[in-house]
Amino acid sequence: MTETNNILIKDTTIISDDIKKSSILIVDDTIQEISSSLTEKDAENVIDGTNKITMPGLINTHSHVAMTLLRGVGDDQSLQTWLNDYIWPKEAKLNDELVYLGSKLAMAEMIKTGTTTFNDMYFYMEETAKAVDESGMRAVLGYGMIDLFDEEKMKSELKVSEQLIKNCHMTCEDRVTVAVAPHAPYTCSEELLIKSKELADKHDLKYHIHVSETKQEVNDISKDKGKTPFEYLNDIGVLSSDTIAAHGVWTTQDEMKILKEKEVSVAHNPSSNMKLASGIAPVNEYLKNDINVSIGTDGVSSNNNLDMFSEMKLTAFLQKVNLLDPRVLPTQDTFNMATKNGANALGLNTGIIEVGKLADIILVDTLVPHMTPVRNALSNIIYSSLGTDVDTVICNGKILLENKELLTINEQEIIQEVNERAFEL
Amino acid sequence: MTETNNILIKDTTIISDDIKKSSILIVDDTIQEISSSLTEKDAENVIDGTNKITMPGLINTHSHVAMTLLRGVGDDQSLQTWLNDYIWPKEAKLNDELVYLGSKLAMAEMIKTGTTTFNDMYFYMEETAKAVDESGMRAVLGYGMIDLFDEEKMKSELKVSEQLIKNCHMTCEDRVTVAVAPHAPYTCSEELLIKSKELADKHDLKYHIHVSETKQEVNDISKDKGKTPFEYLNDIGVLSSDTIAAHGVWTTQDEMKILKEKEVSVAHNPSSNMKLASGIAPVNEYLKNDINVSIGTDGVSSNNNLDMFSEMKLTAFLQKVNLLDPRVLPTQDTFNMATKNGANALGLNTGIIEVGKLADIILVDTLVPHMTPVRNALSNIIYSSLGTDVDTVICNGKILLENKELLTINEQEIIQEVNERAFEL
Repeated sequence: MTETNNILIKDTTIISDDIKKSSILIVDDTIQEISSSLTEKDAENVIDGTNKITMPGLINTHSHVAMTLLRGVGDDQSLQTWLNDYIWPKEAKLNDELVYLGSKLAMAEMIKTGTTTFNDMYFYMEETAKAVDESGMRAVLGYGMIDLFDEEKMKSELKVSEQLIKNCHMTCEDRVTVAVAPHAPYTCSEELLIKSKELADKHDLKYHIHVSETKQEVNDISKDKGKTPFEYLNDIGVLSSDTIAAHGVWTTQDEMKILKEKEVSVAHNPSSNMKLASGIAPVNEYLKNDINVSIGTDGVSSNNNLDMFSEMKLTAFLQKVNLLDPRVLPTQDTFNMATKNGANALGLNTGIIEVGKLADIILVDTLVPHMTPVRNALSNIIYSSLGTDVDTVICNGKILLENKELLTINEQEIIQEVNERAFEL
Repeated sequence: MTETNNILIKDTTIISDDIKKSSILIVDDTIQEISSSLTEKDAENVIDGTNKITMPGLINTHSHVAMTLLRGVGDDQSLQTWLNDYIWPKEAKLNDELVYLGSKLAMAEMIKTGTTTFNDMYFYMEETAKAVDESGMRAVLGYGMIDLFDEEKMKSELKVSEQLIKNCHMTCEDRVTVAVAPHAPYTCSEELLIKSKELADKHDLKYHIHVSETKQEVNDISKDKGKTPFEYLNDIGVLSSDTIAAHGVWTTQDEMKILKEKEVSVAHNPSSNMKLASGIAPVNEYLKNDINVSIGTDGVSSNNNLDMFSEMKLTAFLQKVNLLDPRVLPTQDTFNMATKNGANALGLNTGIIEVGKLADIILVDTLVPHMTPVRNALSNIIYSSLGTDVDTVICNGKILLENKELLTINEQEIIQEVNERAFEL
């Protein structure tokens, strides 16, 4: 990692709430000044921002990053076959070393495609925290609790979460925070869901949960509880502004009202919802109802990559074609979903390029054929760019990617190790 | 361009009708041998294929390539506003120089993202042919005829097509063929559609036309003709195995029967159909009915790039989510659409890696995080790859891209010129 106290990004096109030409001064972990009159004398490190688009680092609000090891497992299967015959048997063989390795590979991929923050739910999360520490990224990490309605299992799952909070919350210069993460209403007992909420409240943590992903889930919960998933979660008192509900595909109008009232955030996962054929989430309706909706990639085996640029394009495209209206999800709305809405969901002081915000910033190269000409920088970012156009990544004021080269991860070493060890699963 | 009589791609993972490890010998423009026992002594040029996936060059069967100049024009507008207020006024200012420039930029983009053949419909097509000549790509070029039911205009449009056939058909070592391309049933008179078919038959050419792109078009044609677009075209006798129908979004069951009987090919454009909110084409139904369906990007201002890897992923994803069935459009079907089905549509001896086929071959790098591990090479190509993973492109036995560097186009010169001149439009 290039150690640096201050960085000047000079003469660049900045996209955030608007598009402007300016320069940015970063001091320590913070954006100190944005001004065209900044000069090279103002900083030790100067990054030439000409012919680059400078924007907030992307925020992936729903991931299972160590699943990179399962890339390509169980494609084109029905959801139950995919889980029962492919994913769960392999996940049963996971261990701490493999989760560390898969997390490190994911971070190489995420940094190279412009993601600076991710919100993860998985197992052996201390290992993912170790990889975050080394990579220089920012993350919210939750242990995915599943008790399958067994009381002993519930207690042991909560203990794992408590341990994770103790070990990792507010570590790595505060780049790592911990969330409480009960898997879903159909895999967790009511008691686990409630005790998870108590645990989150006790430590002032986020509550990360899968909700309303498939029609099957909605049918099952409705049959079992006599209400829809969000109604059920609301009735047991676990929804609040700390909730990050992943998916929200089959949300009803009545549930929309609950989400708005309780200020729940929804993490939309377009690739995963399309690949697993879960359905098309009512993203435009969420936005119309002022519900905070952000974007996630979900795990790699239902995607199959972690490129948030693809997710932005898909988010806009899917709403347009589904509503047969090309005007919905204009570029700024989509951009906000992948940046500041994500920061809102996770409660982080980032996701926007503004004085006083944490310096999580990426630079995207425009001197490539598919980004030429730049008539509208925001349009090119949403509709034309590929994740690999990212040239520079700064997180928490540190440079993690420079001229497309990773500074904190030995990329080829990780690739080789994964190629040797992934097949243990 | 590297002049070479033979090339050996050694020890590589080949995807075509199946996945295998082997080596490929190219002599002149043709695949001469595929065998693991080929050695470096068999060729003057040896390409190391280890850690690469080798596959047919992608075939983009519906494009308007010079529209790269209009990248980012009129996003998020209704179709009529987009055409009337944004695209048509700018297209009215096109000239030969700008079409050459836009075509050249498009070819830089297409080669770098693994496309070797495209099927284009636009204006000033001699200029696009000149760019094809220089770039080394393969193309089917049609002048987009629009008479708006005016007889004089009809005659002059046909003359432009006749001139194009004379100037360009079977030129550039046969890499360029010409198609007859009446724009659409709602912009061309019945007489133009019929005379176009006669012209195509006279020279044994393909007939490239937009059909059934929007609900509005279907409604208008139904009102005007008392039948659906494909029924109308069939009744006037212009459909045949030479037809390439772009879009086919609103095709009915009755029209499916016509397409099958007349062996019409359909070019599916998922990005464009999503961005313009045209609708979701019944691709899975086409495949079930043994209709030859391939993939296109359409023009850049309804996409907004020319990356066929994105189009493959979108093709599969869109069918899965629309039918709520993750099993439809398995990877091999999607792959065929972007390769050999495209070659079938265009009547070209390419699109498959097989002895005797034209040597249009690309190599994709796997030693990047988002392609690791390679559990299934085909899965990684369809679901994980980005267009920029393409490392080597061979078209007609000539190397056009080597280690991601264009050999036939001065990339930065073209980018600079487009950045200076695109705004004339």
